[in-house]
Amino acid sequence: MNAEQIKNLVRDVPDFPKKGVIFKDITPLLSDVTAFREAVRLLAAPYKGKGITKVLGVEARGFLLAAPAALELDAGMVPLRKKGKLPRKTVSASYALEYGTDTLHMHADALEKGDKVLIVDDVLATGGTCAAVIEMARELGAEVVAAAFLIELDFLGGRGKLKDTAVHSLINYK
Amino acid sequence: MNAEQIKNLVRDVPDFPKKGVIFKDITPLLSDVTAFREAVRLLAAPYKGKGITKVLGVEARGFLLAAPAALELDAGMVPLRKKGKLPRKTVSASYALEYGTDTLHMHADALEKGDKVLIVDDVLATGGTCAAVIEMARELGAEVVAAAFLIELDFLGGRGKLKDTAVHSLINYK
Repeated sequence: MNAEQIKNLVRDVPDFPKKGVIFKDITPLLSDVTAFREAVRLLAAPYKGKGITKVLGVEARGFLLAAPAALELDAGMVPLRKKGKLPRKTVSASYALEYGTDTLHMHADALEKGDKVLIVDDVLATGGTCAAVIEMARELGAEVVAAAFLIELDFLGGRGKLKDTAVHSLINYK
Repeated sequence: MNAEQIKNLVRDVPDFPKKGVIFKDITPLLSDVTAFREAVRLLAAPYKGKGITKVLGVEARGFLLAAPAALELDAGMVPLRKKGKLPRKTVSASYALEYGTDTLHMHADALEKGDKVLIVDDVLATGGTCAAVIEMARELGAEVVAAAFLIELDFLGGRGKLKDTAVHSLINYK
């Protein structure tokens, strides 16, 4: 199974969550274990042996890929969550996203100097979410090695917002 | 690493999300890849070779365990989500939870007759969430083989609400 076959399991849903937006529905891919496993393998593969200590995943869909990618890379899993969800002291960063604005939080002791971080998420859209995650990881002294996405929406230009970070995506929409 | 060592990585946070509640913080466990891998293995182990076709995970923390458990069991992953998050036709069920009430949705084509389902979640509290998931799975004609939890809060009696479903938990708090 290659990236093209994985792409065939991502379904376009027009006008979701609002008119004019074509939503990329990954649930058919998740439901096909061969495709799901291969997607995780391909996301993690470039970073095997690169000393990644933590994989960062953004709630909620990002968890579905970041958790198995962390196990694949023998790295800890750090969840990034919306306000009020993490119980201890956090760092936070706000960002504009495709459908509004939001704030993400991470436990303040989740990373430390010396950590080498891979960010894993389902979709790179405008890049705002990922830029916020990078900001928090650096605030805690970690090195952000790269950000890996199942899907990149090239036409939204998110990669341009992440200039100083290596970006890797499996599926691109022009 | 055994269940007791895994339990030592779950941290009590008093008065979260509200006064009088002791929150079970699993982020230290997720951050320790040896413990995280072993927790997933122990959650899935009783169901290996039992013909599980789909693992059901509840957003958001449930995804962190259900996704790798699905890969471990060679089964598809089906996400249960809050209202407005799944883009296609859904079934839904409402439930009371420890801190309020809520509704969960699942894509209506996510399961079919013949599917053998394992529900994987982080915490069994009052059992309301899990009962809602079971209701939806059965509505779609699937067989619910069991529900597996990282943590069971025995004192909330959730197991009693799931009488006709096999329940398995790694860590119990009396």
